[in-house]
Amino acid sequence: MKAHVYVTLKRTVLDAQGQTVADALRRMNYKGVADVRQGKYFLLTLDATAAADPTAAEAEVNRIAREILVNPVIEEYSFRLEP
Amino acid sequence: MKAHVYVTLKRTVLDAQGQTVADALRRMNYKGVADVRQGKYFLLTLDATAAADPTAAEAEVNRIAREILVNPVIEEYSFRLEP
Repeated sequence: MKAHVYVTLKRTVLDAQGQTVADALRRMNYKGVADVRQGKYFLLTLDATAAADPTAAEAEVNRIAREILVNPVIEEYSFRLEP
Repeated sequence: MKAHVYVTLKRTVLDAQGQTVADALRRMNYKGVADVRQGKYFLLTLDATAAADPTAAEAEVNRIAREILVNPVIEEYSFRLEP
């Protein structure tokens, strides 16, 4: 079982990296992109014990994200479990 | 219309960042995580012209990913369009 965790800066936080990419795209004449936000992506591979109980796996991934992967002051996250 | 682009190191490339996270999780007694890969996540907001033609939007996002966001030597990507 795999867990895909997506971490982005909160909407209210300035995303300098994303703006730099957006500016570069504009300068290089790529059309159609209004805005870019950049974030982090984690792919966790869960072992068989975790995979046996999806509810527990979801709780564990939530805990790992909140306590380790994400800075809750400036970031938010979402995740998706893949069997 | 939004495009979510996920960029990860190829399977064959050593992911030191991901391994560091995995080691930290093990040391801190989080159970059930066998492996971690870390990558980048880009959220592109496409403007109305792009949104009007999903096929063209898909081609443009593919082009932006290949030419700007991804280093094809060591990285691979996938993306998803959200209306």
